[in-house]
Amino acid sequence: MWSGAHLIGMDGADAEQLRSVLDVAADASFDPDALRGRAVANLFFEDSTRTRVSFSLAAQRLGARVVDWTSAGSSVSKGESLLDTFLTIESMGFDAVVVRHRESGAARLLTEHARCAVINAGDGTHQHPTQALADALALGEALGRDRGWDFSGVTVAIVGDCVSSRVARSNVASLTALGARVILVGPAPMVPDTLGEALGCEVAHDLDAVLPEVDAAMMLRIQLERGAGRLLPGGFDYAGAFGLSRQRAAGMKDGAVVMHPGPMNRGVEIEGVVADGSRSIVLAQVEAGVRVRMAVLDEAIRRSV
Amino acid sequence: MWSGAHLIGMDGADAEQLRSVLDVAADASFDPDALRGRAVANLFFEDSTRTRVSFSLAAQRLGARVVDWTSAGSSVSKGESLLDTFLTIESMGFDAVVVRHRESGAARLLTEHARCAVINAGDGTHQHPTQALADALALGEALGRDRGWDFSGVTVAIVGDCVSSRVARSNVASLTALGARVILVGPAPMVPDTLGEALGCEVAHDLDAVLPEVDAAMMLRIQLERGAGRLLPGGFDYAGAFGLSRQRAAGMKDGAVVMHPGPMNRGVEIEGVVADGSRSIVLAQVEAGVRVRMAVLDEAIRRSV
Amino acid sequence: MWSGAHLIGMDGADAEQLRSVLDVAADASFDPDALRGRAVANLFFEDSTRTRVSFSLAAQRLGARVVDWTSAGSSVSKGESLLDTFLTIESMGFDAVVVRHRESGAARLLTEHARCAVINAGDGTHQHPTQALADALALGEALGRDRGWDFSGVTVAIVGDCVSSRVARSNVASLTALGARVILVGPAPMVPDTLGEALGCEVAHDLDAVLPEVDAAMMLRIQLERGAGRLLPGGFDYAGAFGLSRQRAAGMKDGAVVMHPGPMNRGVEIEGVVADGSRSIVLAQVEAGVRVRMAVLDEAIRRSV
Repeated sequence: MWSGAHLIGMDGADAEQLRSVLDVAADASFDPDALRGRAVANLFFEDSTRTRVSFSLAAQRLGARVVDWTSAGSSVSKGESLLDTFLTIESMGFDAVVVRHRESGAARLLTEHARCAVINAGDGTHQHPTQALADALALGEALGRDRGWDFSGVTVAIVGDCVSSRVARSNVASLTALGARVILVGPAPMVPDTLGEALGCEVAHDLDAVLPEVDAAMMLRIQLERGAGRLLPGGFDYAGAFGLSRQRAAGMKDGAVVMHPGPMNRGVEIEGVVADGSRSIVLAQVEAGVRVRMAVLDEAIRRSV
Repeated sequence: MWSGAHLIGMDGADAEQLRSVLDVAADASFDPDALRGRAVANLFFEDSTRTRVSFSLAAQRLGARVVDWTSAGSSVSKGESLLDTFLTIESMGFDAVVVRHRESGAARLLTEHARCAVINAGDGTHQHPTQALADALALGEALGRDRGWDFSGVTVAIVGDCVSSRVARSNVASLTALGARVILVGPAPMVPDTLGEALGCEVAHDLDAVLPEVDAAMMLRIQLERGAGRLLPGGFDYAGAFGLSRQRAAGMKDGAVVMHPGPMNRGVEIEGVVADGSRSIVLAQVEAGVRVRMAVLDEAIRRSV
Repeated sequence: MWSGAHLIGMDGADAEQLRSVLDVAADASFDPDALRGRAVANLFFEDSTRTRVSFSLAAQRLGARVVDWTSAGSSVSKGESLLDTFLTIESMGFDAVVVRHRESGAARLLTEHARCAVINAGDGTHQHPTQALADALALGEALGRDRGWDFSGVTVAIVGDCVSSRVARSNVASLTALGARVILVGPAPMVPDTLGEALGCEVAHDLDAVLPEVDAAMMLRIQLERGAGRLLPGGFDYAGAFGLSRQRAAGMKDGAVVMHPGPMNRGVEIEGVVADGSRSIVLAQVEAGVRVRMAVLDEAIRRSV
């Protein structure tokens, strides 16, 4: 999880490190001057709503200076490399750089050269660690596991295009480390058996068989803009086979919750009434995201000093 | 005007509420820590220069944290709905969300679901309430009506494509509530008689007949980018018929002022020399806009607590 | 250099003014509340990575409020003039406006109408004064000339498309004023003899003849996006003739340094191994840029009061 001052992925996360961040985030008694005099740069090479705004607000709540940089209107159009852009920004004196990039491994690459803390805000199909922390925080609080963060006995289905999902990859690692049983669910091209082997979790291709057992169904966005449609046969009824409809949600266990990292495709992977229903903790995940990012920024900068 | 903690439009504005905001804005002795610890999000789905910058500066002057969000470089390209985007941003813990959107009614829609304060920064052709407040502040100060904000005896012509203008709609309501006489002026397709009936004000189609009587001429931008040209017959000389030329301005009453919400099309609805001339209070409107937005943010957040 | 409260260009810079800014920037003991209550607007009509972020961070480090404005997502798409956009922003109450524009002379134009301080962050091919100040700061510190900033005996080659370069123009003026000998180097269409005459410095067309003599080689970006290629004959091997290769760098004097204003085209005007090598002060230039901009903002606002 932590690699020095850097937070790149959840691979190899251990429960102790996770609990440490989650306890700080759950406590929420942050010092508004904790990062007074510090500076955070948001370096976003890819579109984002919630992640950039969430990091920006988190940094400001701790008293840090924040500068946003997005690839629109920047030197990227002039062909500068990711590393040169990063080193330029870092050299201005930022204490932490939050980076999102379409290439898997982009954030890790930067850590080989960084003197400041690097926080991965999503790299290609690889990792999105602060999303996984937000999900663990929101799930733990929803299920009453927020003292000790022991998720043993908890079953989570992650449903959708898992092979293309950095959110799935990060969540499998963190949820498993906290003791949960994780099942990846989706059509075979999106959830190949080899993925389960690689990530060390179960896979399933029949949502209706899995859903009644789970404590949480985490629905992934079908990312048509990343070419998810190419993985499926023409005319495949994704919503019919894997969408979380009202009927399906009604068959879930008492107390089971519905999650989504957003942005949602209502009517595709999730029916609107379920997204807005009593099982949904979608907005709690968003709220948890700010607290988690405050905890991460504070810890990362503390580690980098 | 206020609907709980929300400021959506000027329809139904009463003089007492208007005076309360105008007095605070005119006094200008703001506490730089009034919104310390509070957070404001600018949620702009449409282009803007002055409004977004003005709100951002206003919020910072009161000590608030501010995060800007624009539809460029965001999840809107991923098809997320306005409401989902809003609820996501709100869930991060913002105290007020300032929203601009191309659809009339967008801001009102959000108030049905909002827990934080919603401030409309322009929705389609519907309303732009903080512009109308800025205009009332600047006009009252220019005409010496800034004690009591009694505009009785004041005549204001709003000239241009009134039917498409959220600025016109908001100003008719607020100026009328303060006692002014308002005349909408423009070619019939842009100022239909039915509009006057709907808004409860006079209409006229001959600028030269009206101009010598008015205390203020508020020239609206001919919004070619919103298809204003389609309302007019081919070859229609808009500037000749309804542009505020130097000659026309010279025939105005002593002390009468020229207004424009910007951005100006110099040479179309207003001649450059008039925009820069001694009657012009265009930049005073801009300056007033920041003070008005400080007053509105402060009041909205106070109401939402 | 200073024109009242404005910093537009380095033409006519005198050593005393330069040393005053450099001493403040080098000292680096800035008061984090120096600009408390002040507001700075970044008005960027052209793409930028480092300059906008650098100014934003510099202003925040002095406690100022900062609002960014870029031409993407703004009223520029509605045809508003540069001057009207500037006056609108200024009227909101900013103490300094930092402006970048593709037209040479844009910043100077604004000073004819400005009441606040105007700082040129790059105007067409004309001037980029804070880059030149950053370069002088980094170079002086690298060569041990940072007490007194006396560059006599120092030879600097500026290599590349000098005729199109605002960085070259600004650096010739400032480095010469500090006593350095400056040689512009490049193919004749990019470094015409008339340019040397106009700027009052030497020109050369053979890099290998010049390089062994210099204390600093400042490599300019070949700005293909500004049409630099049109200046050269088809098939011209720019990197072979004027690129700073490993071999060429090896032949430089002991202690001589390599500079680049960024963004770099690795493999064109500079070989990657040289950019990252021990002679390179490229990232020191970036770091110096923030300090210089703090000194400039502080001084400009002090002068404008």
